[in-house]
Amino acid sequence: MSDKELLVTKINYGTVIDHIPSGRALAVLRVLGINGSEGYRVALVMNVESKKMGRKDIVKISGRTVDEKESNLITLIAPNATINIIKDYEVVKKMKMKVPLVIRGILKCPNPSCITNNDPEAFTKFVSISENPLRIKCDYCETTITEAEVIKQVL
Amino acid sequence: MSDKELLVTKINYGTVIDHIPSGRALAVLRVLGINGSEGYRVALVMNVESKKMGRKDIVKISGRTVDEKESNLITLIAPNATINIIKDYEVVKKMKMKVPLVIRGILKCPNPSCITNNDPEAFTKFVSISENPLRIKCDYCETTITEAEVIKQVL
Repeated sequence: MSDKELLVTKINYGTVIDHIPSGRALAVLRVLGINGSEGYRVALVMNVESKKMGRKDIVKISGRTVDEKESNLITLIAPNATINIIKDYEVVKKMKMKVPLVIRGILKCPNPSCITNNDPEAFTKFVSISENPLRIKCDYCETTITEAEVIKQVL
Repeated sequence: MSDKELLVTKINYGTVIDHIPSGRALAVLRVLGINGSEGYRVALVMNVESKKMGRKDIVKISGRTVDEKESNLITLIAPNATINIIKDYEVVKKMKMKVPLVIRGILKCPNPSCITNNDPEAFTKFVSISENPLRIKCDYCETTITEAEVIKQVL
Protein backbone atom coordinates (compact mmCIF):
# COMPACT_ATOMS: atom_id res chain seq x y z
CA MET A 1 0.00 0.00 0.00
CA SER A 2 2.86 2.41 0.73
CA ASP A 3 3.85 3.02 -2.88
CA LYS A 4 0.34 2.77 -4.32
CA GLU A 5 -2.59 4.99 -3.78
CA LEU A 6 -3.91 4.93 -0.28
CA LEU A 7 -7.64 4.59 -0.40
CA VAL A 8 -9.55 5.41 2.70
CA THR A 9 -12.89 3.77 2.10
CA LYS A 10 -16.29 5.04 3.00
CA ILE A 11 -17.15 4.21 6.57
CA ASN A 12 -20.01 2.03 7.76
CA TYR A 13 -20.48 3.56 11.20
CA GLY A 14 -18.75 6.54 12.70
CA THR A 15 -18.09 10.25 12.28
CA VAL A 16 -16.78 12.50 9.50
CA ILE A 17 -15.56 15.94 10.55
CA ASP A 18 -14.97 18.14 7.52
CA HIS A 19 -14.09 21.81 6.93
CA ILE A 20 -11.64 21.92 9.83
CA PRO A 21 -9.30 24.95 9.50
CA SER A 22 -6.02 23.72 7.99
CA GLY A 23 -3.55 22.35 10.49
CA ARG A 24 -6.05 21.75 13.28
CA ALA A 25 -7.03 18.11 12.76
CA LEU A 26 -4.77 16.93 15.57
CA ALA A 27 -6.37 19.45 17.91
CA VAL A 28 -9.79 18.00 17.01
CA LEU A 29 -8.57 14.51 17.92
CA ARG A 30 -7.15 15.92 21.13
CA VAL A 31 -10.43 17.44 22.32
CA LEU A 32 -12.15 14.13 21.48
CA GLY A 33 -9.59 12.31 23.61
CA ILE A 34 -8.41 10.13 20.69
CA ASN A 35 -4.70 9.37 20.35
CA GLY A 36 -4.88 6.08 18.44
CA SER A 37 -4.45 3.67 21.33
CA GLU A 38 -8.26 3.31 21.64
CA GLY A 39 -8.23 1.14 18.50
CA TYR A 40 -10.66 3.15 16.38
CA ARG A 41 -9.80 3.23 12.72
CA VAL A 42 -8.98 6.87 12.03
CA ALA A 43 -8.20 8.54 8.70
CA LEU A 44 -7.04 12.11 8.64
CA VAL A 45 -5.79 14.56 6.05
CA MET A 46 -4.26 17.94 6.76
CA ASN A 47 -3.76 20.94 4.48
CA VAL A 48 -5.70 19.62 1.49
CA GLU A 49 -7.23 21.90 -1.12
CA SER A 50 -10.73 23.21 -0.44
CA LYS A 51 -12.85 25.36 -2.75
CA LYS A 52 -14.51 27.07 0.18
CA MET A 53 -11.57 27.45 2.54
CA GLY A 54 -8.39 27.40 0.43
CA ARG A 55 -7.01 24.64 2.59
CA LYS A 56 -8.64 22.46 5.19
CA ASP A 57 -8.34 19.30 7.28
CA ILE A 58 -10.68 16.29 7.43
CA VAL A 59 -10.99 13.61 10.12
CA LYS A 60 -12.88 10.32 9.76
CA ILE A 61 -13.38 8.08 12.76
CA SER A 62 -14.75 4.61 12.25
CA GLY A 63 -16.70 2.94 15.03
CA ARG A 64 -17.25 6.02 17.16
CA THR A 65 -19.82 8.78 17.06
CA VAL A 66 -19.52 12.13 18.83
CA ASP A 67 -22.18 13.53 21.13
CA GLU A 68 -23.51 17.04 21.54
CA LYS A 69 -21.04 17.92 24.28
CA GLU A 70 -18.08 16.81 22.14
CA SER A 71 -19.40 18.68 19.11
CA ASN A 72 -19.60 21.83 21.18
CA LEU A 73 -15.99 21.39 22.29
CA ILE A 74 -14.94 21.19 18.63
CA THR A 75 -16.30 24.73 18.11
CA LEU A 76 -13.43 25.99 20.26
CA ILE A 77 -10.93 25.15 17.52
CA ALA A 78 -13.01 24.59 14.38
CA PRO A 79 -16.16 26.71 14.67
CA ASN A 80 -17.24 26.15 11.04
CA ALA A 81 -16.53 22.43 10.85
CA THR A 82 -19.30 20.09 9.73
CA ILE A 83 -19.83 16.97 11.82
CA ASN A 84 -21.70 14.12 10.16
CA ILE A 85 -22.70 10.95 11.97
CA ILE A 86 -22.65 7.90 9.69
CA LYS A 87 -24.69 4.71 10.06
CA ASP A 88 -24.93 2.02 7.37
CA TYR A 89 -22.77 4.17 5.08
CA GLU A 90 -25.27 7.05 5.19
CA VAL A 91 -25.25 10.40 6.97
CA VAL A 92 -27.95 9.99 9.64
CA LYS A 93 -27.27 13.17 11.57
CA LYS A 94 -25.57 16.52 11.06
CA MET A 95 -24.50 17.79 14.45
CA LYS A 96 -25.41 21.36 15.33
CA MET A 97 -22.57 23.04 17.17
CA LYS A 98 -22.56 25.79 19.75
CA VAL A 99 -19.71 27.12 21.86
CA PRO A 100 -20.20 25.32 25.20
CA LEU A 101 -21.37 27.46 28.10
CA VAL A 102 -18.92 25.74 30.44
CA ILE A 103 -15.62 24.01 29.59
CA ARG A 104 -14.19 21.78 32.30
CA GLY A 105 -10.74 20.23 32.56
CA ILE A 106 -9.42 20.46 28.98
CA LEU A 107 -7.75 23.87 29.13
CA LYS A 108 -5.28 25.41 31.57
CA CYS A 109 -5.64 28.90 32.96
CA PRO A 110 -2.67 30.99 31.71
CA ASN A 111 -2.55 32.96 34.97
CA PRO A 112 0.19 31.32 37.09
CA SER A 113 -1.39 32.66 40.30
CA CYS A 114 -4.78 31.09 39.51
CA ILE A 115 -5.85 28.50 42.10
CA THR A 116 -6.17 25.91 39.30
CA ASN A 117 -2.39 26.13 38.79
CA ASN A 118 -1.55 25.83 42.46
CA ASP A 119 -3.96 23.39 44.06
CA PRO A 120 -3.20 19.91 42.63
CA GLU A 121 -6.82 18.88 43.23
CA ALA A 122 -8.37 21.86 41.43
CA PHE A 123 -9.85 21.38 37.95
CA THR A 124 -10.12 24.23 35.48
CA LYS A 125 -13.51 25.68 34.57
CA PHE A 126 -14.06 28.27 31.87
CA VAL A 127 -17.30 30.00 30.95
CA SER A 128 -18.11 31.37 27.52
CA ILE A 129 -18.43 35.14 27.15
CA SER A 130 -18.32 35.58 23.37
CA GLU A 131 -18.76 33.12 20.51
CA ASN A 132 -17.33 35.04 17.55
CA PRO A 133 -14.58 35.98 18.15
CA LEU A 134 -14.19 33.31 20.79
CA ARG A 135 -13.61 34.57 24.32
CA ILE A 136 -13.87 32.39 27.40
CA LYS A 137 -13.19 33.31 31.01
CA CYS A 138 -11.65 31.35 33.88
CA ASP A 139 -14.42 30.91 36.43
CA TYR A 140 -11.95 31.28 39.32
CA CYS A 141 -9.63 34.22 38.48
CA GLU A 142 -11.59 35.72 35.53
CA THR A 143 -8.60 35.60 33.15
CA THR A 144 -9.94 35.75 29.57
CA ILE A 145 -8.55 33.58 26.76
CA THR A 146 -9.11 33.68 23.00
CA GLU A 147 -9.07 31.10 20.19
CA ALA A 148 -5.31 31.57 19.65
CA GLU A 149 -4.59 30.57 23.26
CA VAL A 150 -6.94 27.55 23.02
CA ILE A 151 -5.14 26.30 19.87
CA LYS A 152 -1.73 26.84 21.46
CA GLN A 153 -2.77 24.70 24.41
CA VAL A 154 -4.54 21.92 22.52
CA LEU A 155 -2.06 21.52 19.64
CA MET B 1 -15.72 14.65 -0.18
CA SER B 2 -17.09 14.01 3.33
CA ASP B 3 -19.75 11.51 2.31
CA LYS B 4 -17.86 10.00 -0.61
CA GLU B 5 -14.70 7.99 -0.61
CA LEU B 6 -11.68 9.90 0.51
CA LEU B 7 -8.86 9.26 -1.86
CA VAL B 8 -5.42 10.20 -0.75
CA THR B 9 -3.44 10.31 -3.95
CA LYS B 10 0.08 9.15 -4.56
CA ILE B 11 2.58 11.82 -3.59
CA ASN B 12 5.03 13.56 -5.90
CA TYR B 13 7.67 14.41 -3.31
CA GLY B 14 7.80 13.49 0.34
CA THR B 15 7.88 10.59 2.76
CA VAL B 16 5.79 7.47 3.36
CA ILE B 17 6.16 5.78 6.74
CA ASP B 18 4.49 2.38 6.76
CA HIS B 19 4.27 -0.54 9.21
CA ILE B 20 3.96 1.71 12.24
CA PRO B 21 2.59 -0.25 15.24
CA SER B 22 -1.14 0.46 15.49
CA GLY B 23 -2.04 3.57 17.41
CA ARG B 24 1.39 5.20 17.18
CA ALA B 25 1.08 7.40 14.09
CA LEU B 26 0.58 10.54 16.17
CA ALA B 27 3.74 9.72 18.14
CA VAL B 28 5.62 9.51 14.83
CA LEU B 29 4.38 12.97 13.84
CA ARG B 30 5.36 14.21 17.29
CA VAL B 31 8.99 13.07 17.04
CA LEU B 32 9.16 14.66 13.58
CA GLY B 33 7.89 17.92 15.06
CA ILE B 34 4.84 18.02 12.77
CA ASN B 35 1.52 19.22 14.18
CA GLY B 36 -0.14 20.48 11.00
CA SER B 37 0.60 24.17 11.34
CA GLU B 38 3.72 23.79 9.17
CA GLY B 39 1.46 23.49 6.10
CA TYR B 40 2.66 20.12 4.81
CA ARG B 41 -0.06 17.99 3.32
CA VAL B 42 -0.28 15.00 5.65
CA ALA B 43 -2.40 11.86 5.29
CA LEU B 44 -2.57 9.38 8.10
CA VAL B 45 -4.48 6.22 8.89
CA MET B 46 -4.55 4.45 12.22
CA ASN B 47 -5.56 0.90 13.09
CA VAL B 48 -5.96 -0.38 9.53
CA GLU B 49 -5.70 -4.07 8.65
CA SER B 50 -2.24 -5.41 7.87
CA LYS B 51 -1.36 -8.94 6.75
CA LYS B 52 1.98 -8.80 8.49
CA MET B 53 1.05 -6.98 11.66
CA GLY B 54 -2.67 -7.52 12.26
CA ARG B 55 -3.17 -3.79 12.52
CA LYS B 56 -0.91 -0.90 11.68
CA ASP B 57 -0.68 2.84 11.07
CA ILE B 58 0.60 4.68 7.97
CA VAL B 59 1.75 8.30 7.64
CA LYS B 60 2.32 10.13 4.36
CA ILE B 61 3.90 13.58 4.34
CA SER B 62 3.92 15.57 1.14
CA GLY B 63 6.67 18.10 0.53
CA ARG B 64 8.99 16.96 3.31
CA THR B 65 11.61 14.24 3.52
CA VAL B 66 13.11 12.88 6.74
CA ASP B 67 16.82 12.68 7.38
CA GLU B 68 18.90 9.97 9.04
CA LYS B 69 18.65 11.56 12.48
CA GLU B 70 14.86 11.73 12.27
CA SER B 71 14.63 8.14 11.00
CA ASN B 72 16.66 7.01 13.98
CA LEU B 73 14.29 8.82 16.34
CA ILE B 74 11.37 6.95 14.80
CA THR B 75 12.95 3.66 15.94
CA LEU B 76 12.15 4.68 19.50
CA ILE B 77 8.44 4.18 18.87
CA ALA B 78 8.22 2.19 15.64
CA PRO B 79 11.37 0.06 15.33
CA ASN B 80 10.05 -1.99 12.39
CA ALA B 81 8.56 0.85 10.38
CA THR B 82 9.61 1.32 6.76
CA ILE B 83 10.50 4.84 5.69
CA ASN B 84 10.43 5.57 1.96
CA ILE B 85 11.55 8.84 0.44
CA ILE B 86 9.56 9.74 -2.68
CA LYS B 87 10.65 11.92 -5.58
CA ASP B 88 8.73 12.24 -8.87
CA TYR B 89 6.20 9.67 -7.59
CA GLU B 90 8.92 7.00 -7.16
CA VAL B 91 10.66 5.58 -4.10
CA VAL B 92 14.19 6.95 -4.39
CA LYS B 93 15.46 5.89 -0.98
CA LYS B 94 14.56 3.43 1.78
CA MET B 95 15.89 4.80 5.04
CA LYS B 96 17.90 2.44 7.21
CA MET B 97 17.04 2.94 10.84
CA LYS B 98 19.11 2.48 13.96
CA VAL B 99 18.30 3.42 17.55
CA PRO B 100 20.16 6.71 18.00
CA LEU B 101 23.21 6.63 20.29
CA VAL B 102 22.19 9.92 21.85
CA ILE B 103 18.69 11.44 22.18
CA ARG B 104 18.57 15.12 23.09
CA GLY B 105 15.63 17.21 24.20
CA ILE B 106 12.62 15.13 23.09
CA LEU B 107 12.12 13.03 26.24
CA LYS B 108 11.85 13.92 29.90
CA CYS B 109 13.71 12.08 32.64
CA PRO B 110 11.09 10.40 34.89
CA ASN B 111 13.27 10.94 37.96
CA PRO B 112 11.91 14.08 39.67
CA SER B 113 15.27 14.72 41.38
CA CYS B 114 17.18 14.67 38.09
CA ILE B 115 18.89 17.97 37.33
CA THR B 116 17.02 18.13 34.00
CA ASN B 117 13.77 18.48 35.95
CA ASN B 118 15.09 21.15 38.28
CA ASP B 119 17.35 23.47 36.30
CA PRO B 120 15.18 25.38 33.81
CA GLU B 121 18.17 25.72 31.47
CA ALA B 122 19.05 22.01 31.43
CA PHE B 123 18.17 19.88 28.39
CA THR B 124 17.66 16.15 28.64
CA LYS B 125 20.17 13.75 27.13
CA PHE B 126 19.67 10.00 26.94
CA VAL B 127 22.11 7.38 25.69
CA SER B 128 21.13 4.06 24.19
CA ILE B 129 22.02 0.90 26.13
CA SER B 130 19.89 -1.73 24.37
CA GLU B 131 18.10 -1.73 21.02
CA ASN B 132 15.74 -4.67 21.38
CA PRO B 133 14.09 -4.41 23.83
CA LEU B 134 14.66 -0.68 23.86
CA ARG B 135 16.45 0.68 26.93
CA ILE B 136 17.90 4.15 27.13
CA LYS B 137 19.60 5.85 30.07
CA CYS B 138 19.56 9.46 31.30
CA ASP B 139 23.11 10.74 30.89
CA TYR B 140 22.84 12.78 34.09
CA CYS B 141 21.17 10.57 36.72
CA GLU B 142 21.40 7.18 34.95
CA THR B 143 17.66 6.47 35.22
CA THR B 144 16.75 3.86 32.59
CA ILE B 145 13.59 4.06 30.50
CA THR B 146 11.94 1.54 28.16
CA GLU B 147 9.77 1.76 25.04
CA ALA B 148 6.58 1.92 27.14
CA GLU B 149 7.80 5.07 28.92
CA VAL B 150 8.85 6.66 25.61
CA ILE B 151 5.39 6.06 24.11
CA LYS B 152 3.69 7.40 27.23
CA GLN B 153 5.68 10.60 26.95
CA VAL B 154 5.42 11.13 23.21
CA LEU B 155 1.74 10.23 22.75
